[in-house]
Formats: sequence, C-alpha cells, structure tokens
Amino acid sequence: MASLKIKAMPLTKAGFAPYGDVIETEGAKHFSINQGTVERYHDLATVEIGSNTDSRALISIASCNQKSTMPHRITCMERHKLGSQAFIPMGDMQMVIAVAEPGDNLDITNIRAFVSNGKQGINYKLGCWHMHAIFLDPEQQMLVIDRGNSEMDCEEVYLDDEEIIIEY
Amino acid sequence: MASLKIKAMPLTKAGFAPYGDVIETEGAKHFSINQGTVERYHDLATVEIGSNTDSRALISIASCNQKSTMPHRITCMERHKLGSQAFIPMGDMQMVIAVAEPGDNLDITNIRAFVSNGKQGINYKLGCWHMHAIFLDPEQQMLVIDRGNSEMDCEEVYLDDEEIIIEY
Repeated sequence: MASLKIKAMPLTKAGFAPYGDVIETEGAKHFSINQGTVERYHDLATVEIGSNTDSRALISIASCNQKSTMPHRITCMERHKLGSQAFIPMGDMQMVIAVAEPGDNLDITNIRAFVSNGKQGINYKLGCWHMHAIFLDPEQQMLVIDRGNSEMDCEEVYLDDEEIIIEY
Repeated sequence: MASLKIKAMPLTKAGFAPYGDVIETEGAKHFSINQGTVERYHDLATVEIGSNTDSRALISIASCNQKSTMPHRITCMERHKLGSQAFIPMGDMQMVIAVAEPGDNLDITNIRAFVSNGKQGINYKLGCWHMHAIFLDPEQQMLVIDRGNSEMDCEEVYLDDEEIIIEY
C-alpha cells in the first residue's frame, strides 16, 4: 500500500491558481455601488456551466452533519468536467481541501492540500480533481454554486489501495 | 408630493414568490452527499443569465460601507430584465428589501417591503423592480450572484416626487 502524507498549506490565490479561484475580497478589483453605500468586489470566480442549453447555474446550501477530524485519510477524489463548483462559507468556517490538477488520470503524487482562513471560498475549475471538502465547523453552512443539468458530471476515483493522509 | 408608508413584513417564500426566490434551507428539498457527512439543500433559486452566449453567472461580494437607518425613504427603484440577481448573507445579517412585480412601468402602489431573518438570501427574478437592499449590519458581507455581460442591464426610476417610506 502506497503511503503519503500531505501537509495542508494556507490557501492563497497564487497557490490555488492551478485548481481554480479563491473567493475573497483581498486583492480583488472593486468599485462602489448603491450610491456609495456598498463596495462590490467583482467577478471573483469563473463559473462554468458548459454549452448545453439546458444547463444553468444552481445555488444550493451544503449543511455539515458532523465535525471532521484531522488528520484525514482521502478515500476518494472526484472531478466535474462540464461545470465548475464553488463553496463559500455562510459564516466563519475553515475548510481543508485537497486537489490535483485537471488531467485524464489522477496522479496521487500531484495531490496538494490547503486550509482556508474561515472566510475564503473556493471555486474548482473544470476537471480539477478534488476530495470532498472537510468543513471544520459543523455548525456552519456553505453556499454552493455549480452546474445543474440532467446529465451526470461526476467521475470518482477510490483510493482504497493508497493511504493518503492530509495533515495541517 | 405623493406620500406612502410601507411596513416591511417578515420575508417568506410564499410572500416573496411574485418577486423571486428566498434562499434558505427551511422547506427546501435536500439529500445527503459526501458519504452522508453533508446535507445538500438543492437548487434554491432560478439563476437567469439570458441567452446571449457571452453572458455568464458572476460571483461577487458586496461589502457594506455604512449602517442603514430605518425608517428609510426609497429614492430609486431599479430592475434587470436580462438577469436575475441574488444576495446571500455571509454571516448573520438582516436586510430590508422593497420590491414591485415585473412590469413595464413601476406602479408605486404595488411596492411591498420585507425584512429577512438574518440567514435568508433572496434572488430577484427577471424584471422585478427593487430598491437597493438595506443591510442592517455594516460588519457583514453579502455574496452576490448575477449576470455578467458587457451589455448594460439596469433601468432606474427615481422617486424624487414621491415620499415612500419603509418602516419595520
């Protein structure tokens, strides 16, 4: 059994760029709206829903049922080739994410892990391999923006023969 | 000068249906994902971006610069005919919204006002007249999901000749 330990690094736009967007105000372009009462941090993620005419962007809420514990063994990685997928905390909540760059085959040596600062959201780009995000506070919820379509768009790779541990 | 007082009512899905969606878990269809660790409250809003091929859904953050005070006089109502517009609090924050049903001309006697419970988000449907939302906590931020396109999609009606006051 292959064994691998991966340390989760602080989530930054630069570090996460190969995998998608970090949704945060820091470093984002912004301008005033609503007669100067509100600042809009504009267009923070590339939302992809594909070209199929019955595809649309969905807004959903993910509610955590249980606190995840760390370190965490990755048992599965998945990807969506037709749509991006964004998760934004609806209250302060750190998440631990593990990703690998898009590619036909998952190369486990390319898996990287990040831990968010509690306010940051993320958006996985098309085809980015990712594990199910670990939400470190079960009391909080995440807003999810992804692609809705009757066509399935989820490929999974199970990692039962590897022991890949995320630490932070 | 026409004078009108409108009392903001608690925001509910049923009451807000003529104007758009209330984004909340309560009463929403849901199912388990991520090996049972997360409950997904699915497809809570009808996101519209029009049929123009260069339109896409944007994710932005609106940050309040100042606390709004109530009662509030409506000075302007606006609508977007090509795209929906959603606002979801990123922490507990009540908002006061005023809306009127889609229609070519704004009828001020049709304006209704709502106050959210702090967790609810809203999504204005195509063409729904609305004032700039009043955010009751300047420390919090709102996630915004709306249509991105180089084509402008905002019509405004100024209400300088009417005194329309929202109370709650």
